[in-house]
Amino acid sequence: MSRVTIVPEEDRLTTQIAFAVEIDKLKRIIRRNLLIDGSRRENDAEHSWYAATLAMVLGEHAPPGTDVQHVIAMLLVHDLVEIDAGDTFIYDPVAVAEQAEAERAAADRIFAILPAEQGARLRALWDEFEARETDEARFAKAIDRFAPILANHHTEGGTWPLFKVTAAQVREKVRVIAEGSPSLGAYARELVESSVANGHLPE
Amino acid sequence: MSRVTIVPEEDRLTTQIAFAVEIDKLKRIIRRNLLIDGSRRENDAEHSWYAATLAMVLGEHAPPGTDVQHVIAMLLVHDLVEIDAGDTFIYDPVAVAEQAEAERAAADRIFAILPAEQGARLRALWDEFEARETDEARFAKAIDRFAPILANHHTEGGTWPLFKVTAAQVREKVRVIAEGSPSLGAYARELVESSVANGHLPE
Repeated sequence: MSRVTIVPEEDRLTTQIAFAVEIDKLKRIIRRNLLIDGSRRENDAEHSWYAATLAMVLGEHAPPGTDVQHVIAMLLVHDLVEIDAGDTFIYDPVAVAEQAEAERAAADRIFAILPAEQGARLRALWDEFEARETDEARFAKAIDRFAPILANHHTEGGTWPLFKVTAAQVREKVRVIAEGSPSLGAYARELVESSVANGHLPE
Repeated sequence: MSRVTIVPEEDRLTTQIAFAVEIDKLKRIIRRNLLIDGSRRENDAEHSWYAATLAMVLGEHAPPGTDVQHVIAMLLVHDLVEIDAGDTFIYDPVAVAEQAEAERAAADRIFAILPAEQGARLRALWDEFEARETDEARFAKAIDRFAPILANHHTEGGTWPLFKVTAAQVREKVRVIAEGSPSLGAYARELVESSVANGHLPE
């Protein structure tokens, strides 16, 4: 980059490109769940695309008045902290507790690469997603939780038998989905009960 | 899915989930360019996340009045046709010409999985992206073209020497970037000339 001339009006762009280079690393963060064809485990970047696109497609199942564009923006950045903090398996309560501090530190570092007010704006999207207090955040979280259930349903239980997850644990995640979208929650419940009936998810 | 009860108000959701299952395949479509760390080739799904997120971060460099949310929506779906048609290397003119018909057929099939009016809306996003006649489409295409130049610049030329791409060919792509965003075009030009000077891109 030594030949790139820095002039004042280009400072913001240079900083934003440094952020772009940094977040490319999300493609190397591997999640537990498999692709729907079962061929391999998913990475955070392709999961983030999938979640954002599902929000666009399923937006009508969010509560009336939900700003779907805002949900999409949240989902595009919701896993960036995992560049430093790594992926946490949501059925491991100890890891989830330890993870919170690591993710805050990651957010402090990664969003600070951007121009200050822009970094604060993107950081606020992540904070909102984590707090799950707005309709937008609850719907975003519903999509985030729905995607691996869909994948597991299509791969004979996928990560459920592999990591000894029980139906009771998955039903708790279904409640989180229903809080963001009642109809998506009902659909997820059918998928889960179908997986239990098929022997792909133990009680 | 045989246990999922279909009642009228859930028909749309069932159709949308079928689309969700279909588009998961985008994660298996491999592009030519490498990740920025050079570790492997990129897939279309993670590329689509990267492009949509870059549009959010770089939106201020689009012409005044550009609807960045619309750009993001376009970028989320811009490569779905490659599920059927595969990735085309943009420096191969014969493949590019043959590709157009295959992509149209793919769009006809894939967007038609959705409820009709929603499928038409998403299809329109793809048509708009391809036509490159709106500020939004030109900016989306600029981001799409910029990302692999950034990756190649960071990987000693990446796919350029590998596929014998010349500086003149890359400078043509830089013109497409400048049409969508003059400042991003100027930045891309600096990256390309720096790569030429470093011997990573032959004249």
